[in-house]
Amino acid sequence: MLIVMHHHATSEQIDAVVAAVKTMGLIAEPIPGSIRTAIGVLGNQGYVDDSTIRNLPGVRETIHVSKPYKLASRDFHPQATIVDVAGVRFGNGLPPVMIAGPCSIESEEQMQAGAAAVKAGGGQMLRGGAFKPRTGPHSFQGLGVDGLALLQRAGQAHGLPVVTEVMRIEQLDAVMRHADMIQIGARNMQNFDLLKEVGKCGHPVLLKRGMSATLEEFLAAAEYILAEGNPKVVLCERGIRTFERATRNTLDLSVVPMIKELSHLPIVVDPSHATGKRSLVPVMTRAALVAGADGIMVEVHPDPARALCDGAQSLSGPEFSELMDSVRKLLGFLGFANN
Amino acid sequence: MLIVMHHHATSEQIDAVVAAVKTMGLIAEPIPGSIRTAIGVLGNQGYVDDSTIRNLPGVRETIHVSKPYKLASRDFHPQATIVDVAGVRFGNGLPPVMIAGPCSIESEEQMQAGAAAVKAGGGQMLRGGAFKPRTGPHSFQGLGVDGLALLQRAGQAHGLPVVTEVMRIEQLDAVMRHADMIQIGARNMQNFDLLKEVGKCGHPVLLKRGMSATLEEFLAAAEYILAEGNPKVVLCERGIRTFERATRNTLDLSVVPMIKELSHLPIVVDPSHATGKRSLVPVMTRAALVAGADGIMVEVHPDPARALCDGAQSLSGPEFSELMDSVRKLLGFLGFANN
Amino acid sequence: MLIVMHHHATSEQIDAVVAAVKTMGLIAEPIPGSIRTAIGVLGNQGYVDDSTIRNLPGVRETIHVSKPYKLASRDFHPQATIVDVAGVRFGNGLPPVMIAGPCSIESEEQMQAGAAAVKAGGGQMLRGGAFKPRTGPHSFQGLGVDGLALLQRAGQAHGLPVVTEVMRIEQLDAVMRHADMIQIGARNMQNFDLLKEVGKCGHPVLLKRGMSATLEEFLAAAEYILAEGNPKVVLCERGIRTFERATRNTLDLSVVPMIKELSHLPIVVDPSHATGKRSLVPVMTRAALVAGADGIMVEVHPDPARALCDGAQSLSGPEFSELMDSVRKLLGFLGFANN
Amino acid sequence: MLIVMHHHATSEQIDAVVAAVKTMGLIAEPIPGSIRTAIGVLGNQGYVDDSTIRNLPGVRETIHVSKPYKLASRDFHPQATIVDVAGVRFGNGLPPVMIAGPCSIESEEQMQAGAAAVKAGGGQMLRGGAFKPRTGPHSFQGLGVDGLALLQRAGQAHGLPVVTEVMRIEQLDAVMRHADMIQIGARNMQNFDLLKEVGKCGHPVLLKRGMSATLEEFLAAAEYILAEGNPKVVLCERGIRTFERATRNTLDLSVVPMIKELSHLPIVVDPSHATGKRSLVPVMTRAALVAGADGIMVEVHPDPARALCDGAQSLSGPEFSELMDSVRKLLGFLGFANN
Repeated sequence: MLIVMHHHATSEQIDAVVAAVKTMGLIAEPIPGSIRTAIGVLGNQGYVDDSTIRNLPGVRETIHVSKPYKLASRDFHPQATIVDVAGVRFGNGLPPVMIAGPCSIESEEQMQAGAAAVKAGGGQMLRGGAFKPRTGPHSFQGLGVDGLALLQRAGQAHGLPVVTEVMRIEQLDAVMRHADMIQIGARNMQNFDLLKEVGKCGHPVLLKRGMSATLEEFLAAAEYILAEGNPKVVLCERGIRTFERATRNTLDLSVVPMIKELSHLPIVVDPSHATGKRSLVPVMTRAALVAGADGIMVEVHPDPARALCDGAQSLSGPEFSELMDSVRKLLGFLGFANN
Repeated sequence: MLIVMHHHATSEQIDAVVAAVKTMGLIAEPIPGSIRTAIGVLGNQGYVDDSTIRNLPGVRETIHVSKPYKLASRDFHPQATIVDVAGVRFGNGLPPVMIAGPCSIESEEQMQAGAAAVKAGGGQMLRGGAFKPRTGPHSFQGLGVDGLALLQRAGQAHGLPVVTEVMRIEQLDAVMRHADMIQIGARNMQNFDLLKEVGKCGHPVLLKRGMSATLEEFLAAAEYILAEGNPKVVLCERGIRTFERATRNTLDLSVVPMIKELSHLPIVVDPSHATGKRSLVPVMTRAALVAGADGIMVEVHPDPARALCDGAQSLSGPEFSELMDSVRKLLGFLGFANN
Repeated sequence: MLIVMHHHATSEQIDAVVAAVKTMGLIAEPIPGSIRTAIGVLGNQGYVDDSTIRNLPGVRETIHVSKPYKLASRDFHPQATIVDVAGVRFGNGLPPVMIAGPCSIESEEQMQAGAAAVKAGGGQMLRGGAFKPRTGPHSFQGLGVDGLALLQRAGQAHGLPVVTEVMRIEQLDAVMRHADMIQIGARNMQNFDLLKEVGKCGHPVLLKRGMSATLEEFLAAAEYILAEGNPKVVLCERGIRTFERATRNTLDLSVVPMIKELSHLPIVVDPSHATGKRSLVPVMTRAALVAGADGIMVEVHPDPARALCDGAQSLSGPEFSELMDSVRKLLGFLGFANN
Repeated sequence: MLIVMHHHATSEQIDAVVAAVKTMGLIAEPIPGSIRTAIGVLGNQGYVDDSTIRNLPGVRETIHVSKPYKLASRDFHPQATIVDVAGVRFGNGLPPVMIAGPCSIESEEQMQAGAAAVKAGGGQMLRGGAFKPRTGPHSFQGLGVDGLALLQRAGQAHGLPVVTEVMRIEQLDAVMRHADMIQIGARNMQNFDLLKEVGKCGHPVLLKRGMSATLEEFLAAAEYILAEGNPKVVLCERGIRTFERATRNTLDLSVVPMIKELSHLPIVVDPSHATGKRSLVPVMTRAALVAGADGIMVEVHPDPARALCDGAQSLSGPEFSELMDSVRKLLGFLGFANN
């Protein structure tokens, strides 16, 4: 950490800051400049809590050098992580994984048809939501635990590992019994209790970026899971909230190569939620793959016009197959053999 | 809802949209214009889920007229709501309520000293966090359930009702036993399961705005609680996330009069989290009161330099007393007798 | 336009709104719903100025159906536009154009070396700034008019048409004499006087999106140029300002396919300014091409470490050549022959 | 500036960075920490251009300690600046100045009636726009130079100094002849050529914050004017663009006390453009005054329902008088005698 003093800070004020740093068990090294003095803080093993320093007299600001994550950092863990979900593997330059399925689990028929469409198109994993976060209380809220079994049966029938969102700690046991991978939704990215429990459970996790989370906060959220001993974290970019409303969210694709510089964790992209618009999903899927995504998650519904949730951004089975044809060609071009 | 067709939409496409609206049990009224046709959707009692309509051929966009909240709307509930928390009352032009206390509960001594400072300054409610959401896993995480008893004892010793955050449904019973008001934090504003449980419990609720929540989403979150039969909701503006980082968040004070136009619920302002800077708290407290806030929540710590959380934005006891002197004068000027 | 009345609006208020619409020469069609009345406004040929309506008693809100652009709209101009810049052509599925060159024109040697690097790599147009907008007044401000001649000579020597930014109307004549295409920078996207003059001049224009401009405002800015009779407009996405600061701006790639749905104008992408980070430029270039960009503009400097401006995001000559090798392969894969 | 090296940076890389700093004429002081090395850069008199450093091998990031403004900084200029506009004075704790008038100058009658309303209400300055920046080309664009004389005559007839926006350098002479204060609009806050010319002209300037400008960029824009020798700069907060659209912009009131900490320049607030909603203007005016604004600028129109621009946010004459009654009482409470 660097502590920047005011231009007119007195030497007594500088001494007081140095003393305060020492009481924190750290080393303070004053760096007198031509205009002002800065004080380097050394000896910390990670992020320093600066709240006791920031308001000392004469302090203009504190500047963090350490990041609020370390286990998630490539700096300390140069080797890329591979996450294995029931045999489907993400990361480290492996062929990108295509996850697809309905937004919400609606019925046995719908899930079986959805899984069949995913399998027919060449998808490798099945998604589907049993617990649905909806902006207003008067929308369809999901089938709950009953839906989990439908998801699992559909996955097993078609040889597809399944991923589904957990919204509360109490749902975790049921989700683990039925699903191969646990999704933490964007609204729960900073539900730290949930992150810790998921960290303890050891199951593979798909962690979605919060809609107003910085990249630093995104990796700090992953750190919560890693810190509990669970290294099986796959990140997911799904669009951020900006002033632009022509698309549902703003897909931040630069985050894919940026994450690869800063972290060793795999990252997938969800163009369905990011754009909210079916017509944009195929093109942004391909752009995400070229950007280096380790996987894609798209919404596929056997009958989008009758979907109970997010029909406007869901692909039909034939649309998914058409997308997958283009994906296979692109992956071939990108040098992924035999995907 | 209004469905806007493309300029070049065919009459077959228009007919198909009209038919789709009818299958939803609603009335479709085409409005042919000079350039394009729009289709009014009538007969709905609330927000219409448009996902099956938006992608029909020839549809350019759908425009919502109904809001995703109704119980929270002043349109349907013109009379302002008063929320009573153990005798302290919020809303409808009553004198604004001053809530103060430490960010986190640290010890018996700290809470008793904090409560004494709040009481001495003239605060009417005590705040303190037992469960702390922290961006990184390596920061102080709060005392948990043990802290709740400390909070309650401090409140009782000084005659101050207490408010504290609940982060998980399982904590709800304990929080209800120890606290007079339940806080839903910004990160949980769209934790819909939690909102529903809080709606069922009947306890007064302080609902903080999510850091990237629109006003419409904020009121829709309140709707979740109201829809379960709990009318005791106090809203809390605590700053939103924008591109500006000179302050911790951007305090959106216009939301106070805007909420009063749109809703009947009381709204308080938290200038501590909004600005993140002790020196700005007093002035923004007064600005919020002039903007019409029904209350203020500020962080007060007996020894901010040693606070385990958010010391940089906490007032000391004497600073709080000084703020309250100015608040009393301002409230007198604003016509609140004998606050 | 749709005018939404309050739930409790009286029939007198509705009549008054209808009368006000008629005085605007438009048709008002009331649509009584089960909860409230809406009033459709018909007969307008474009965007309706609603400021006299919005505050009439009983009006809750007005909703625009028409967009603030029409000439730029694909709805009214289905055929994609091709913009020809001294033989280099943008749009309508033609092979994407690679524009490259230094951020700022520094010297004869630098420009000749820069142009040689662009040509050697296979770029088709040369860029370079003579007038530089810089955040602070103490940074290098550009060579001004003198720089224009250096740019032109470098372009001619290597057979590359040139594009350069105009910042003021008085610079327009000089820029037109020396450059084949005029760039309007992000900060001037809503400098409407400048847009109109550029519209009158008839020269090809590269219009960059403002850093907080919505897609609708972006197209409305293009409309200013088109409305003056100049159809040669190429749009340029260069990143928007969001809360995220890990990259300089947030590259909004979804805007590329979205623009193609809404408009007939070509759109290019500038990954250098969008990311601000050299290491991200190649990958985001390729992602933009896959997203459907009609061209790319990247910063290339013969010696980035000594660049007077934006060295951190500039590619060296060899880095550009390496990028172009991958671009050629990608364009081949995408079906662009012989680019 | 602080240069942060990667954890694994070699000593050769560190030496190369030190050498690069020295070639810039600055001092490099390595600070070896327990995890990584940082390099302090000393000897600079202001903001350091880091673009040649940021991409050297082994560099993780550079952190600026100096700000891109110095003349505007309170650190270097502790005494608050007073700006005198034809006898009306802003800043340093003087009574806040009320500026009011129509959005755009429409006619002799309208301006005379507008000025009479401003004077009758107790306003001290008159505003009115002759050159109007409008989002679309099909809206009213202002009377241009002809309007300036109408503004001046209306001001003189009622003893009110006038302020009006200049949009291009060529308009500057005319504006200076007719107006007492020159406004730089939000869209031109980074029109650096215009800032420099306004800096040279010596006339008082009202500089509006750009809609996506950080506070640091805002002060850096003021620096452009100050650096040319013109100290008469009054800043103006007018709302920023965020994801929230319930109000036209988001009024960032915390910026008022924050600017007072960081700068010596006066700051006024424009609640009309910030909120875009007439009903919010009075309450946000009062909140801004309590936040410490040195003045307020509001839109007043003799007949808002017939205003050619921004009628929805304009007050009528009686509404302005009513606002001013409440403002006078508030200023009396705040200790401003005899305003």
